[in-house]
Amino acid sequence: MNGRVVFIGAGPGAADLITLRGARLLATADVVLFDALTDPALRDFAPGARWVHVGKRGFSASTGQATINALLVKHASEVDVVVRLKGGDPSVFGRLEEELEALADAGIECEIVPGVTAAIAAAAATQRPLTRRGHGRSVSLTTAMTRTGAVHASHTADTEVFYMAGKQLCALSRRLIESGWPSDSPACAVSRAGWPDQLHSDHTIATLPRASLLHAGRPTIVTVGAGARALRATAQRNPIDASETCAEPLKP
Amino acid sequence: MNGRVVFIGAGPGAADLITLRGARLLATADVVLFDALTDPALRDFAPGARWVHVGKRGFSASTGQATINALLVKHASEVDVVVRLKGGDPSVFGRLEEELEALADAGIECEIVPGVTAAIAAAAATQRPLTRRGHGRSVSLTTAMTRTGAVHASHTADTEVFYMAGKQLCALSRRLIESGWPSDSPACAVSRAGWPDQLHSDHTIATLPRASLLHAGRPTIVTVGAGARALRATAQRNPIDASETCAEPLKP
Repeated sequence: MNGRVVFIGAGPGAADLITLRGARLLATADVVLFDALTDPALRDFAPGARWVHVGKRGFSASTGQATINALLVKHASEVDVVVRLKGGDPSVFGRLEEELEALADAGIECEIVPGVTAAIAAAAATQRPLTRRGHGRSVSLTTAMTRTGAVHASHTADTEVFYMAGKQLCALSRRLIESGWPSDSPACAVSRAGWPDQLHSDHTIATLPRASLLHAGRPTIVTVGAGARALRATAQRNPIDASETCAEPLKP
Repeated sequence: MNGRVVFIGAGPGAADLITLRGARLLATADVVLFDALTDPALRDFAPGARWVHVGKRGFSASTGQATINALLVKHASEVDVVVRLKGGDPSVFGRLEEELEALADAGIECEIVPGVTAAIAAAAATQRPLTRRGHGRSVSLTTAMTRTGAVHASHTADTEVFYMAGKQLCALSRRLIESGWPSDSPACAVSRAGWPDQLHSDHTIATLPRASLLHAGRPTIVTVGAGARALRATAQRNPIDASETCAEPLKP
């Protein structure tokens, strides 16, 4: 008799961005397979579980996907509850379908608890709504880099959010302009979205490459278009107000 | 001396989809301004607060936006902590910028706690990841209906999720085909995403209008493209398996 696997979106960053349901089910885990980008403080929710690091981060997987799939099946055949803890939300850039299919092939039941995805956490922390009435009716979540390493961008939504964009800022800036974005469109880079040491910086699409230094080595998402624009009146009151020249992490 | 306003994403549906941070800050509220689509069970998190219903739902606002803005400012001038509780996430189709600007104009400090947005909750409950490796690299969140009542659609992302689509399924189907989607592309309609009585039904873009009956009168989101497709192996094991002909709410 197999156990079951609960996929839980840990939310981006700080442990208290997990949902109540996620925290409750995490506490039932016998084994937790967790990603590199989840908060170590989450361990306190399931101190008796066996925590297995399967650190994936963007495209530089330290544990191969096939190995993770096999680990899920193996542990689910040995214990009652396996939790697969993913940063952000499992359904957004989480390679969830591969894990679900491996488990379904093995006849193992799954449940998915959604989480806050990084784009939404960045919008909250920078107080920049992703949609704006009248001129921001659509938001696109995408990855700039493809499996081949090529950088793609387009001008399809009023607001576009690029995940895992940190290493591609020059190419992303160029591709956005090539695909029809005005070069002076607002662009906002946020690294470590949802963590206490989150940083953000404001740019235009043309000056986006300048963000590289500030966010170097940190998971970074880039928002362009309507949702990247600071609000008229709140610009000065933003609780996290990193400028382009900021070199030190700011407190939230 | 003004109080402050905390915007909290309640998540879609069931109360336990709120984040730990959201629940903790909700408990500090003196006044809570809440939307129609938030779970009444959330009241238990702040039983001593004054709960003010400012029921907005989609485009048929029962309380005007200007009134809500004024209420926020008024209450923040009278108490320490006003919570603005919004269904889903405040930054996604929440008209957040209007409320933030009104508060900034009045010199009132704000904080935003992100939440799980309906598209992501629907993906979790139907076990259909919004992104798919290789052929689902982008997801667009959009509203089908504009302020004028016209229905817009486009073919811009691999997966497109339409919020507040329930009343526009015929027009949406037509517009999607007009904008280049193959008429046999997968389409999934989910109503009351994240609630115990959630329903979902599978269609193609051409047959999407048939979803009207099942989801009538219920807040409905529609996913089309890569992220609407049931997974190969999990299709039969989906815990919520409403078919087009299903007439009764299913248990999650």
